Amino acid sequence: MRSEELHETLLPKRLALPVFASDPLSSVAYATQEILLVLALGGLAYLHFAPWIAAAVIALMTVVVLSYRQVVHAYPSGGGSYEVVSTNLGPWAGLVVAASLLVDYVMTVAVSVASGVDNIISALPQLAPHRVLLAIGFVAALTATNLRGVRESGRAFAAPTYLFVGGVLIMVITGLVRCALGDAPVAESAAYGITAAPSDAGLTGLALLMLVLRAFSSGCTALTGVEAISNGVPAFRKPKSANAAATLAAMGITAVVMFAGVTALALITKVHITGDPCRLTGLTGSCSAYTQRTVIAQIAAAVFGGEHSLGFYLIQTVTALVLILAANTAFNGFPLLASILAQHRFLPHQLHNRGDRLAFSNGILALAIVACLLLWGFKANVTSLIHLYILGVFTSFTLSQLGMVRHWNGELRAEHDPARRRHHHTARVINTIGAVVTGLVLVIVLATKFTQGAWLAVLAAVVLWVMMRGIRRHYDTTATELAVTDPKTELTFPSRVLAIVLVSTLHKPTLRALAYARALRPDHLEALTVSVDRDEAAALCRHWEEYGIEVPLKVIDSPYREVTRPVVEYVRSVRRESPRDIVAVFIPEYVVGRWWENLLHNQSALWLKNRLLFTPGVMVTSVPWQLTSAAHADRPAARAPGSVRRGEPRGTGLRHHR
Amino acid sequence: MRSEELHETLLPKRLALPVFASDPLSSVAYATQEILLVLALGGLAYLHFAPWIAAAVIALMTVVVLSYRQVVHAYPSGGGSYEVVSTNLGPWAGLVVAASLLVDYVMTVAVSVASGVDNIISALPQLAPHRVLLAIGFVAALTATNLRGVRESGRAFAAPTYLFVGGVLIMVITGLVRCALGDAPVAESAAYGITAAPSDAGLTGLALLMLVLRAFSSGCTALTGVEAISNGVPAFRKPKSANAAATLAAMGITAVVMFAGVTALALITKVHITGDPCRLTGLTGSCSAYTQRTVIAQIAAAVFGGEHSLGFYLIQTVTALVLILAANTAFNGFPLLASILAQHRFLPHQLHNRGDRLAFSNGILALAIVACLLLWGFKANVTSLIHLYILGVFTSFTLSQLGMVRHWNGELRAEHDPARRRHHHTARVINTIGAVVTGLVLVIVLATKFTQGAWLAVLAAVVLWVMMRGIRRHYDTTATELAVTDPKTELTFPSRVLAIVLVSTLHKPTLRALAYARALRPDHLEALTVSVDRDEAAALCRHWEEYGIEVPLKVIDSPYREVTRPVVEYVRSVRRESPRDIVAVFIPEYVVGRWWENLLHNQSALWLKNRLLFTPGVMVTSVPWQLTSAAHADRPAARAPGSVRRGEPRGTGLRHHR
Repeated sequence: MRSEELHETLLPKRLALPVFASDPLSSVAYATQEILLVLALGGLAYLHFAPWIAAAVIALMTVVVLSYRQVVHAYPSGGGSYEVVSTNLGPWAGLVVAASLLVDYVMTVAVSVASGVDNIISALPQLAPHRVLLAIGFVAALTATNLRGVRESGRAFAAPTYLFVGGVLIMVITGLVRCALGDAPVAESAAYGITAAPSDAGLTGLALLMLVLRAFSSGCTALTGVEAISNGVPAFRKPKSANAAATLAAMGITAVVMFAGVTALALITKVHITGDPCRLTGLTGSCSAYTQRTVIAQIAAAVFGGEHSLGFYLIQTVTALVLILAANTAFNGFPLLASILAQHRFLPHQLHNRGDRLAFSNGILALAIVACLLLWGFKANVTSLIHLYILGVFTSFTLSQLGMVRHWNGELRAEHDPARRRHHHTARVINTIGAVVTGLVLVIVLATKFTQGAWLAVLAAVVLWVMMRGIRRHYDTTATELAVTDPKTELTFPSRVLAIVLVSTLHKPTLRALAYARALRPDHLEALTVSVDRDEAAALCRHWEEYGIEVPLKVIDSPYREVTRPVVEYVRSVRRESPRDIVAVFIPEYVVGRWWENLLHNQSALWLKNRLLFTPGVMVTSVPWQLTSAAHADRPAARAPGSVRRGEPRGTGLRHHR
Repeated sequence: MRSEELHETLLPKRLALPVFASDPLSSVAYATQEILLVLALGGLAYLHFAPWIAAAVIALMTVVVLSYRQVVHAYPSGGGSYEVVSTNLGPWAGLVVAASLLVDYVMTVAVSVASGVDNIISALPQLAPHRVLLAIGFVAALTATNLRGVRESGRAFAAPTYLFVGGVLIMVITGLVRCALGDAPVAESAAYGITAAPSDAGLTGLALLMLVLRAFSSGCTALTGVEAISNGVPAFRKPKSANAAATLAAMGITAVVMFAGVTALALITKVHITGDPCRLTGLTGSCSAYTQRTVIAQIAAAVFGGEHSLGFYLIQTVTALVLILAANTAFNGFPLLASILAQHRFLPHQLHNRGDRLAFSNGILALAIVACLLLWGFKANVTSLIHLYILGVFTSFTLSQLGMVRHWNGELRAEHDPARRRHHHTARVINTIGAVVTGLVLVIVLATKFTQGAWLAVLAAVVLWVMMRGIRRHYDTTATELAVTDPKTELTFPSRVLAIVLVSTLHKPTLRALAYARALRPDHLEALTVSVDRDEAAALCRHWEEYGIEVPLKVIDSPYREVTRPVVEYVRSVRRESPRDIVAVFIPEYVVGRWWENLLHNQSALWLKNRLLFTPGVMVTSVPWQLTSAAHADRPAARAPGSVRRGEPRGTGLRHHR
């Protein structure tokens, strides 16, 4: 085992922060904007709620970060929310978290890419008509990169993430300093008014509360990805838990400062942004031709001196880059979670083995396809996509905090040392607060977003949950059915082997199959052909004698020109006559190099093999004949993504047993 | 062989006519209309060309029918145009005909169904918005019927076809009699004027000639399906050729009478029909809301007393029915032609065997899918679809007449009896006229329709032609590569068999695989497992000893958790060490009953098997274990469409050879 080698790849904190935090930090790029967009439904009248909503989001972020620091300490194995919930609340609750997370990974890709494209369009407005195409192009590029198994490196993440954090902080400080000096930057949209949407004009009472809560729900996107560090504890250097907790704290503080700064500047520079540009007043020119820049772009332009300044372009570049990186984290996280679920038999086996060529490719492709469909269906609109997003995040937050409360209950029952009991008590209080607060947010999100599209995310999670339960049940039933009950009897081998070589024409593959079958020296050997054409069958018999083949050839007439049924019926009749023997059927097969050549060969053989496998007491042997074209295609399991990612194996160690 | 049984299914002339002629006779339902639609591009000014164009079509029909009577006599085997051309002009020319015919079968389905829907909408105008859906629904229904392999019966064809012929003839006679009595029926659209399309107003000279030729090309749709009888000669009662020729003549006369009658009545009743209803003048109400009835519907309404008369509904019903039946003929013809092409190795083998479950289903599905795409893409518009149609028909007409000319040349060279020579000379003259005339029409159709959509049909035929050539070349190369050169050496069997049983877990299927492998008494037997998890491997070894399995177990470490590569490499190393022996790899496999269960099992096994087949000197044996769910699915090749169509086989006859 090469687990020792893994040490080299362990991450110091300064690399772990960008690797795990690109997702949560990048959400700063859209969280403020989403708050403003919802509030703008009521015109400019309700923008004064923004600071309060931002404050609530920051408070929530603090609670969640503190809660997850407990998780990091209690579960250094890095199973994250899924492990915490499965262990403490049972496997079906864990499966709810898993389903939510799978949906969320898809949404991370869709939202991050859509927002990245938004920021590119803010810098290059002429790309606006190609929004969806650009987004799908980025997903395709990420897919290709991940399918090729490019080694993901902390360093690749570090530069853009730190540049993004640094750039945003410089922007915030510059903006605030300019403001303090009395030269407050002014956004390009500051002069525009916003007319309220007809349904949201002059709200009061409950309706107003709902609008504010919706804005808060949208702002909660700032919290997406916070749990990433808790999944990645094993990748930290020792002391793992302490380092992870410290990184989590650093991430929390950075996110809060950036979010607060961006929100403050958005209000200072008077960014006026709306979901429907035609509700803007004071526009020169047609509203449908006007492309609104993102909040971060408008701030950058205002602070650094316009949309042609170097500072503006730099901020837009790093923002787009960090958002694409955030999407990339889902491409790593999704197959990993799928692999754990497969290990627990909730998903097909083949998703588990890392070395299996299909494992990661399938996961990556599934993720990419669903993300592209979402981007296409929702026209790469960040706001529409976000409605589907945070539901899963808060489901897993709430359940994992609940799980942690049970965890501490259990610990407290077993613990007698007063100091440790005190610690556990504090931790339980933190997680209880976390559970209550995130649960409350979950209810708010459900209530405000369900009809806006969140129902789709709920439906997807429910379908996944039911499917995974079904798969697990199937595997369990199968395992019971296959368990060895009586090894002695089951190992007793049949007394005689009756071999049948299937012959369609007399060519080299047939002769090889005959030779191989004879090499096994079965108790009885015969060749079998189905005659669908009397002349062809006669010619076959003639050649059979000419070549002096010493195996008897049996000809079955098939007046209806079927092949499969007569063979299967013959094999069954042989089995019926000698039920204690086994029948070995040899099928000559061509091996071809190009996929389309398979359509031209072996189709009857495949169908026949498939049917024969249903017959008890039969074994089916493929005797391959490699056509010339097959030689090119023979690269033994070469390009498996996992193998590239983990470096080429330098030979395999053989061990003998008995 | 049951060929004798076939006699019962041979067709008397009165049944052969409806079976083979539903396609050509049904085209009467749209041929006149297409002539009028093209002429109406120039307003009402050019409608007086219609009788002349109809006369030209009738002359052409006469020539073609006479020509095909020669084909029927010369080629009683029923290969039709494809056989005639392949035999006389060489296989590549034959392939041109085959490609054209395949394209034409698709067009027959699309055009007939679209026209059938048109006639249904004429009776029930409220269905107009659902035109495409209706058309696709009919294709789906035909597909389902044909996939289930419902026995096609002459009787099912007889009633609607004769009712259609009878109905149209009664309508024509009634109309003409009323006209003679001075009570000429008047079509509902007689009062409307038609403004010329801007590009086609006041044409003279060459442009007018082109318009008339275009109208003629569209009218030539009356000839589609004429060659059907020449493909079906073997299905006639004896004397086959004479009966077929008589039926062909009857069909030709019926078609000519119906076509002439419908065209005459269309002109008498003054049916004014146009491709764009907004060019109609004198409409009450909006043109976009006005649904034009088909020509046959307008005549029926005029003759029988309005669009609520019984006669009108009867005519529409039988017209729609006969058009759907015409589409059904393509569902029979397409797989049959594909099967002949497969026999000649121009298409994949599996399309050849009738008994193969996949053979006919694939052909039927391919036909249906392409037809639906066309109906959808062209909005089930008959006129647009017809532009793609007749090109293939006339390609095969021209080439087969050319082929017949060469055929008679050959016959004349060998023939010395003066009476027979005279007959051959006459026949050659007829076919020469046929070739020249149809060749001319082909040029006209190409010139007038190419840019209107016919290029798509040409492109499709070219692609098919290139593909079929490629497939044939591949099969030829393969056959050369596989041909037996030295049977003695090729039959020499290797001295030793080294057997390897692959083990992943110790359950019943593994024990069975071990037992079967031991039953074959190989020279060397070992079990092989790949250790991706040290604990699991240790547990496996422990159970191995507990169960007292006497086969040595080899454990390969796979530090990168791959499975396929270590196994393939190990097998290769075994082969390298003893290159004269063969390696028999035994893979325990589950057999499951539901398709999705396959996704949960055997995926690694499948991949591994696939890779192992590329290794020379290896044979791969699947040892199946039937799970409970497999028992339900074990219906041995039951529902093959061919088997139902031909009646259930009553046992298979076995013959022994040597």
